[in-house]
Amino acid sequence: MRITVLAGGIGAARFLRGLVAHAPDADITVIGNTADDLTLYGLRVCPDLDTVMYTLGGGNDEGRGWGRANETWHALEEIRAYDAVPSWFGLGDRDIGTHLVRTELLAQGRSLTEVTALLTARWRLPVRLLPMTDQSVETHVVVEDPAAPGGHRRLHFQEYWVRHHAELPVVDITFVGIEDATPAPGVLDAIASADVLLFPPSNPVVSLGPILSVQGIRSALRAASAPIVGLSPIIGGAPVRGMADKLLPAIGVDTSAAGVALHFGARRDGGLLDGWLVDERDAPAVPQVTAAGIAARAVPLLMSSVEATAAMAAAALDLAAAVRR
Amino acid sequence: MRITVLAGGIGAARFLRGLVAHAPDADITVIGNTADDLTLYGLRVCPDLDTVMYTLGGGNDEGRGWGRANETWHALEEIRAYDAVPSWFGLGDRDIGTHLVRTELLAQGRSLTEVTALLTARWRLPVRLLPMTDQSVETHVVVEDPAAPGGHRRLHFQEYWVRHHAELPVVDITFVGIEDATPAPGVLDAIASADVLLFPPSNPVVSLGPILSVQGIRSALRAASAPIVGLSPIIGGAPVRGMADKLLPAIGVDTSAAGVALHFGARRDGGLLDGWLVDERDAPAVPQVTAAGIAARAVPLLMSSVEATAAMAAAALDLAAAVRR
Repeated sequence: MRITVLAGGIGAARFLRGLVAHAPDADITVIGNTADDLTLYGLRVCPDLDTVMYTLGGGNDEGRGWGRANETWHALEEIRAYDAVPSWFGLGDRDIGTHLVRTELLAQGRSLTEVTALLTARWRLPVRLLPMTDQSVETHVVVEDPAAPGGHRRLHFQEYWVRHHAELPVVDITFVGIEDATPAPGVLDAIASADVLLFPPSNPVVSLGPILSVQGIRSALRAASAPIVGLSPIIGGAPVRGMADKLLPAIGVDTSAAGVALHFGARRDGGLLDGWLVDERDAPAVPQVTAAGIAARAVPLLMSSVEATAAMAAAALDLAAAVRR
Repeated sequence: MRITVLAGGIGAARFLRGLVAHAPDADITVIGNTADDLTLYGLRVCPDLDTVMYTLGGGNDEGRGWGRANETWHALEEIRAYDAVPSWFGLGDRDIGTHLVRTELLAQGRSLTEVTALLTARWRLPVRLLPMTDQSVETHVVVEDPAAPGGHRRLHFQEYWVRHHAELPVVDITFVGIEDATPAPGVLDAIASADVLLFPPSNPVVSLGPILSVQGIRSALRAASAPIVGLSPIIGGAPVRGMADKLLPAIGVDTSAAGVALHFGARRDGGLLDGWLVDERDAPAVPQVTAAGIAARAVPLLMSSVEATAAMAAAALDLAAAVRR
């Protein structure tokens, strides 16, 4: 079975681990968000791709959810001791090793797709990880700032999230460079040839949003023969992790399991979804989502263990089978 | 007293520590070699400047002589685990912190002189450290390679030394970019305004050689009112450390205390030196050097302790006082 999954960072990585546990023989392709990427001190950093890679490769820190296990922070300690440049991003020493290799390979003229293949080869991933695009796209968040000209200031998503902890009032979100970004090699084919297409419980705005905005990806999803099933990242009106509750209002979407489903929309009405899983406590939302043309079911959606997550993956594949057109 | 010292890496750094111990109130300017610099994985690395900075700042590893104390090597372990790019250069995690800050500051458009001032501020150096130039200069070594076109191959000095342990037969040494390099701000003034000019026991070919080849530095030294005194890096016909014995023959210089002195030459005859210290075991060379117009003395030149090195510095300043013109 060919399964293609759109992916952000921590939520997607954990879901993928459950999917692999449930369907170890499936041929899984992951289309990763790259709009979180940034250049720090000359290093090219791809947070979402790396979180998927480390998590599925067994090299991630389970407690933090991002970065490497057995990590040390000596380079960052030194950066802070110099006090000459900003140092708000969490760069561990082992993690830096990945960024140095990536930066060098990119400087040699390789594409991000090629570089990602070289990096993931070391981790023997049970999936094929593709960046959504080889072009540079950056999520910028426009925030209120009375001190700035016009009362607004624009900053990289990572600065908004990691440096400012999503505490600044959001006015708008833009994906800089998205107009010129084309799907990376293999992306459209992975969508067209899939038996099942999954949206894991990733941030709808800044994780799945950029992927869906790359030209040609949304139309490829709509044209795909496979059913598209998503899992709600919102449980009981709040994100399990992350800052989606700060971003959904900025794009006019209700922070609820039903709200996110309606945001993606029913495929029969020009949207994307055939099926949608909500958490048990959001069972009351099932009739509303179903009425909108999206087959909905309520199941436990907390990724509290690999087993619990594998059960979520099983439920998603079950729903996909049920809605298969 | 104003003392200006030309400097390579380990030998110069250790000598400077002795000089500071002997003359703590002196106003010392160090003109550092930058032709060893290289870009690795996107990081701008300045080995000689950093060795001087770490050594005088108390952050160096005493055993190795280069790099940071209490160092870890996790980033390099990871680079090697990926096996996708060369990994022969010793990059410690704390050291990488320095390179990341430097790379970022250079990317902001600051000159190497400005960056070096920002980096050294943290270490509260007892000297002022200046790069020889703000332009990029790279020492390349041409080696015999029967497999290469023409039987020769050219490689960066660091690759020749760190990767190949100076074991390849040397045909020639060139300083790429030296024609366009101009002295960094403050360099010519530090030479002109010095009371004493010192050549520490640094490699004459690849440490002092590039500094002396920057346009205007040699003539500034020749025009300086201060005496110029050097300390032989060759003891008993061999370098105390490093690979000068592999490089001196390539430029036609005898690997001996007298050979290096005659290579720099007597100032009265168009050369640079007014005085030259050789090690006690090279005392027989004193008459030959003296006869060439360079005041020579034999003293212990092994930098076995800060005290021994301070005595060398004292001997150099004594000789400078004796030859003051």
